[in-house]
Amino acid sequence: MTYTAEIIAVGTELLLGGTVNSDAQDVSRLLSELGINVFFHTVVGDNPERMKQAVEIAKGRADIIITTGGLGPTFDDVTKQTLAEVFGKKLIFNEDVAEKIRSFFTMRLPNMDMPENNLRQAELPEGCTIFENAVGTAPGCAFESDGKHILMLPGPPRECREMLKNCVDPYLRKLSDAQIHSHNIHIIGLGESAVEDKLRPLMESLNNPTLAPYAKDGEVMLRLTAKAKSKELAEELMAPILEKVKDTLGDLIYGIDTDSLENTVVSLLREKGYTLAIAESCTGGLLSKRLTDIPGVSEVYIGSVVAYSEQSKTELLSIERDIISIHGEVSEEVAITMAKGVRKRLGATIGIGITGIAGPESDKSGKEPGTVFIALSTKDTVACRAPKLFFDRERIRISATNNALDMIRRLLTDLPLE
Amino acid sequence: MTYTAEIIAVGTELLLGGTVNSDAQDVSRLLSELGINVFFHTVVGDNPERMKQAVEIAKGRADIIITTGGLGPTFDDVTKQTLAEVFGKKLIFNEDVAEKIRSFFTMRLPNMDMPENNLRQAELPEGCTIFENAVGTAPGCAFESDGKHILMLPGPPRECREMLKNCVDPYLRKLSDAQIHSHNIHIIGLGESAVEDKLRPLMESLNNPTLAPYAKDGEVMLRLTAKAKSKELAEELMAPILEKVKDTLGDLIYGIDTDSLENTVVSLLREKGYTLAIAESCTGGLLSKRLTDIPGVSEVYIGSVVAYSEQSKTELLSIERDIISIHGEVSEEVAITMAKGVRKRLGATIGIGITGIAGPESDKSGKEPGTVFIALSTKDTVACRAPKLFFDRERIRISATNNALDMIRRLLTDLPLE
Repeated sequence: MTYTAEIIAVGTELLLGGTVNSDAQDVSRLLSELGINVFFHTVVGDNPERMKQAVEIAKGRADIIITTGGLGPTFDDVTKQTLAEVFGKKLIFNEDVAEKIRSFFTMRLPNMDMPENNLRQAELPEGCTIFENAVGTAPGCAFESDGKHILMLPGPPRECREMLKNCVDPYLRKLSDAQIHSHNIHIIGLGESAVEDKLRPLMESLNNPTLAPYAKDGEVMLRLTAKAKSKELAEELMAPILEKVKDTLGDLIYGIDTDSLENTVVSLLREKGYTLAIAESCTGGLLSKRLTDIPGVSEVYIGSVVAYSEQSKTELLSIERDIISIHGEVSEEVAITMAKGVRKRLGATIGIGITGIAGPESDKSGKEPGTVFIALSTKDTVACRAPKLFFDRERIRISATNNALDMIRRLLTDLPLE
Repeated sequence: MTYTAEIIAVGTELLLGGTVNSDAQDVSRLLSELGINVFFHTVVGDNPERMKQAVEIAKGRADIIITTGGLGPTFDDVTKQTLAEVFGKKLIFNEDVAEKIRSFFTMRLPNMDMPENNLRQAELPEGCTIFENAVGTAPGCAFESDGKHILMLPGPPRECREMLKNCVDPYLRKLSDAQIHSHNIHIIGLGESAVEDKLRPLMESLNNPTLAPYAKDGEVMLRLTAKAKSKELAEELMAPILEKVKDTLGDLIYGIDTDSLENTVVSLLREKGYTLAIAESCTGGLLSKRLTDIPGVSEVYIGSVVAYSEQSKTELLSIERDIISIHGEVSEEVAITMAKGVRKRLGATIGIGITGIAGPESDKSGKEPGTVFIALSTKDTVACRAPKLFFDRERIRISATNNALDMIRRLLTDLPLE
């Protein structure tokens, strides 16, 4: 059977707009991967009456109710009490859970006495399955009643996410005799609508597996998902489609089930023993920031120059004023000279140079926002891309850094750079 | 009277976890500022039957229903049809709106024929107030029926946000005879719980105005909100509380009703005619990135060196190897030398040097993650902060850049730097 689920997030701060309901997104994503239909999300405040009303409505239209939030130690945490009442369950004090809460406190806050109300978190519905909280004190739990499955998860996004992965995923997989498996296909250098254009007939013809595109930060990801009795059968269903997608997109695919583009590039640099130096202008440090988000990147990344002014280009990269005055600061020649200059200066294997106009204004020479030159230099190679980038300052800057990362990836996998 | 509102977000992608419901947060925040109670959020897919069910429930428990999404041109955009049906309104083709949609297309996409289904967006409930869409094609609208107010807004977050500000805010203000006004007090250098500790008695004693803290990216903001018959009366209610907050927090307040910390710093640099150069190590370009997020920053920001390796520190900043070997790369001496070096090298008024350990691993000398030195140098001044920073790599990097920005702010407003 196909189950239907409803997600109820509990918390007045969500209704005041203080936080965004990211728990609902995380839960929805898991349920979608498991092939469980979600027809409604509800958000309700820390109010027993209205919470009860929301649960009664959900009970009438879903097989699985998953709540997030309201499991804390204070009087306005009402989730367990309300669900126990609606489904006629007693709350029972669990000594094992209480002991874990006490030791969590002692470990994290050795100099503080635990407020007694924390032990309210050890009261759980009779006969429930306990979900351990790997990163906080409030445990989650699940019980079955009137043919419905009720799951309660903590509200803090990190706690909710860990519990989804460690406890909810295995719990829900057991309800279904079918397994869901998927592959994420990561694409760079093609927009979402171009990907759709190339693959629409295939996507529309599929039922199991399914193939769907997701766009984020100038990249596109395709998710291929199959439902079958076993992992092997799911893989068998997916294999021919995966081949078709690979045939269609070729080297625009930078990875399957892989990490981010910057992680892919850093792994390739490590494998090959290459090092990287960067000179960036319009991207103003963004490319360096993305690479240094990765712990341990110092093995392969030497440093950058953010040459935001003519002065910094001549002083830090020894670019001759003539080159700038003849070709303009935003030109292929300057991008290439920046890439060469920073590579030699820092003794790196690969140098990157980026110059362009992020907008919203044009530069003094009248070049339009979105005009960007991205150059790569090695001992033997030099290449430059001049894509026309669109939308706003933020999108132009992200796309420019994506182009630079893609050029490095293509160099390190022996593909043409432009 | 106090109104009660319910927000219904329409879109299957929300139920699949593809996007987070940020529209509900934006709408909630506005309603909370206007003193309108929000008791429920609902999310429903692009499905007429379930959408109708959600609207019927909302109709029974709210005075104001605000929908987001489902106003697009395709067959699965069901919002207007469903609301018109539930409230017994006809949809009428509006020629003025159609003309605007046509000219929006011609302007943005001159080489493309407009798909005819776009004109479905010009069909609106009879007698409604039209909300112009400043950044997209689908207009929003509002109508009154059975004593309820129904407002429909587009789903794309940017379009929704613009419409909230330009159309929904004035529309809802007219419903109430009380006005809501607020001040945002921006704080740097004190965490949320420390701010709460200092102000808890005051916050708890207040009813109108109210005072509430919000934490984000290592900064804290206090929002002071008053409800009164006029702006003048609201200001009168807020004035004594604002004074008390100022007395308590003093120069930890970097602005009231102001922009971000980096915007504040860039404005101060402009006012004083100062220029800035940066040498950053563990923050890896993040400080430069934050500053260059601001259009036109090139007037005051010259450039940066991201000195991620010893080699880049000696080569680009001419730091003597001795200083590094005696004091270690992560030391006050190196931070100060970086600040001085980059200032002189790029001819800036102010130089910033940041060196530290962002983690998650310690460095080879065994210094722990969160150890960071932030130095500022001018012709006459030199100062260094060594805060102990916490949590994860991301938080440590953000806090380090906040410290640097705060030091520049304090220099430019003649406050002690440390």
